[in-house]
Amino acid sequence: MEDSSVSISPALEREIRILHNLVGNAVVDNKYIVLGVGSMQLLKAAVASLACDRRTADVVAAVPYFPAYREQSLLFETAHFTWAGDANVYAQEHLGMNSSTIEFVNSPNNPDGMVRHAVLNGCDAFTIYDYAYYWPHFTAITEAADQDVMLFTLSKLTGHAGSRLGWAIVKNYTLYERLLTYLQLSIITVSHETQLRATQLLRVINGAYSGQLHAEQMIPLGLPPAYYASKGLSFHYGYVVLRDRWMKLNQILNQSKRFGVQHLEPAYCKFFKEVTGPSPAYAWVYCKQENDEDCQAVLQQAGIISRGGKKFDSSTRFTRLSLLKRVSTFENLINHLSFLVSEEINFILLK
Amino acid sequence: MEDSSVSISPALEREIRILHNLVGNAVVDNKYIVLGVGSMQLLKAAVASLACDRRTADVVAAVPYFPAYREQSLLFETAHFTWAGDANVYAQEHLGMNSSTIEFVNSPNNPDGMVRHAVLNGCDAFTIYDYAYYWPHFTAITEAADQDVMLFTLSKLTGHAGSRLGWAIVKNYTLYERLLTYLQLSIITVSHETQLRATQLLRVINGAYSGQLHAEQMIPLGLPPAYYASKGLSFHYGYVVLRDRWMKLNQILNQSKRFGVQHLEPAYCKFFKEVTGPSPAYAWVYCKQENDEDCQAVLQQAGIISRGGKKFDSSTRFTRLSLLKRVSTFENLINHLSFLVSEEINFILLK
Ligand SMILES: Cc1ncc(COP(=O)(O)O)c(C=O)c1O
Ligand SMILES: Cc1ncc(COP(=O)(O)O)c(C=O)c1O
Repeated sequence: MEDSSVSISPALEREIRILHNLVGNAVVDNKYIVLGVGSMQLLKAAVASLACDRRTADVVAAVPYFPAYREQSLLFETAHFTWAGDANVYAQEHLGMNSSTIEFVNSPNNPDGMVRHAVLNGCDAFTIYDYAYYWPHFTAITEAADQDVMLFTLSKLTGHAGSRLGWAIVKNYTLYERLLTYLQLSIITVSHETQLRATQLLRVINGAYSGQLHAEQMIPLGLPPAYYASKGLSFHYGYVVLRDRWMKLNQILNQSKRFGVQHLEPAYCKFFKEVTGPSPAYAWVYCKQENDEDCQAVLQQAGIISRGGKKFDSSTRFTRLSLLKRVSTFENLINHLSFLVSEEINFILLK
Repeated sequence: MEDSSVSISPALEREIRILHNLVGNAVVDNKYIVLGVGSMQLLKAAVASLACDRRTADVVAAVPYFPAYREQSLLFETAHFTWAGDANVYAQEHLGMNSSTIEFVNSPNNPDGMVRHAVLNGCDAFTIYDYAYYWPHFTAITEAADQDVMLFTLSKLTGHAGSRLGWAIVKNYTLYERLLTYLQLSIITVSHETQLRATQLLRVINGAYSGQLHAEQMIPLGLPPAYYASKGLSFHYGYVVLRDRWMKLNQILNQSKRFGVQHLEPAYCKFFKEVTGPSPAYAWVYCKQENDEDCQAVLQQAGIISRGGKKFDSSTRFTRLSLLKRVSTFENLINHLSFLVSEEINFILLK
């Protein structure tokens, strides 16, 4: 075992490349692919690999951001990198300065679903693009991303988060080698059972779509989810389910004066070949009333579990609802939310 | 996903505990079990978790040692720990000094199969026991190890190295929590497919032995390997195969004046309830002749692949042969080695 090197199964690599070409969300040709135990592991591997021969690099991300960017950077900090907070604040404070920086860009962004670009782009700033949610069920595919380091994960593609598979698409050979060394010395390789499972999953999706695309006729989006599921058309399935959830949520929140939610724009999706969305993974809810300072606590009192804004380095007026839970959990959420908003309306009517 | 914590499947945890109690190689009661992606990942997680609130800890291991101890410590070095080389040299240089040290102890040891104890045991020295090979097919089980941090791996237990499962058995709750945090932020959790596979493997072994042990009659060791394999008696199977390999190897090397191999003693094994061994995973071969300075190169020229002593921070006069390869590979090794030694004998006869 100890003599082997981090290996990606050739079958899995093939399916990953086919998938990106099919979806059109990332340029993979002439690039290297490195596997990790979820994209979680690749976030830290990428930072360590980018930081290893620079001055101490500052690691940043624009608020609100996925908490692991901060938590990892703080826990795994070495002489080579250190956490430096909000990318926007950092950009202002370091205007014109030539500091060495690594910026995480998550697009579309967890928690708010926004399409994002790098805030820093000085010559000495390096960007890690976390494309966990850049799939057609979450957001319109507007272009094939062609960045130096791009991270994807099975967790948000098919939902198999427990399988722990992420991959980095890397342009630069030296960086690729560093990532391999980092991963080899950390875990030797990604579980073969996981690789086998993922290969089979991607094979089903690629197979389902290649037939359709070859016939040059895209299946329309208006059909019942069960139809798509039965054919393995997982992007269609994911999109219609999430789109429906987003609309149900907005229907309720639109009646409320107490709660707001992020505004997202529809856009033309090159994959579905029509205007799609919004269909985000999360609702970034905010509390408008002065005394509702802790929005997460407000929802909690109504029996609704969410993740407070503080976690995302944002205000406690914000809180994040996950729209990725199973059907019964989502229905439960909708029921509780309806009740909460109806109370508010009754209260106004009673006044 | 991001809300969940590092989880060990209760079924897997149960099988691991049953197995250690059955084999008697480690005390598990009232201890915590943490999973990692192979014991490889746990080596670095343990160092980072032990080092986090000390002065810069020196990480050491007695030569010859498993190369990852050095390689990981060098690559992942932080402000909290640094690689400091051979534990024996270190012990002499730091005699009486109160420095903060972490020592890896691998027993039986890769590459030489020796039973080992900590070299450093000052009050400020912490030991990580790597028990990858402390199973009855490799060495006599002389006592149930009861150390603070003990690492085991499926790779050397059943040979499923590609599944990537290691576990730490930990006494201290604070250290346990630190390990969990480290792993959660690194990988979230160990692949569920891996956990499922391992559970099933351990269940088969535990099942096979529990019947035997309940009947209070241990199956004898002299039967053909295929018999044990068919009954799931994997320790018996592993032992007879490795014992046979070791004897074949020694038969050849005993005729040689050019090559030597480590001497290992048989010992009473509490698991098999008889004197067993040696049956090590590796042969630690050395070249005796003055001009055979690079023993690995000497074997290489004879078509034999081995791992040179340098890798283990030892002399190039040593090299390591793996006895864990599949049957045809081992036979190939034996044929090449016989030929090499017979050449030497012919040469003497011709003189
Ligand atoms: C933005 C983002 N990146 C990375 C991850 C990590 O996902 P995984 O490690 O399961 O691939 C998540 C999970 O929630 C995420 O939201
Ligand atoms: C002494 C020792 N420890 C740990 C390991 C790592 O094994 P794994 O990561 O497969 O559990 C090995 C593998 O060769 C080893 O020899």
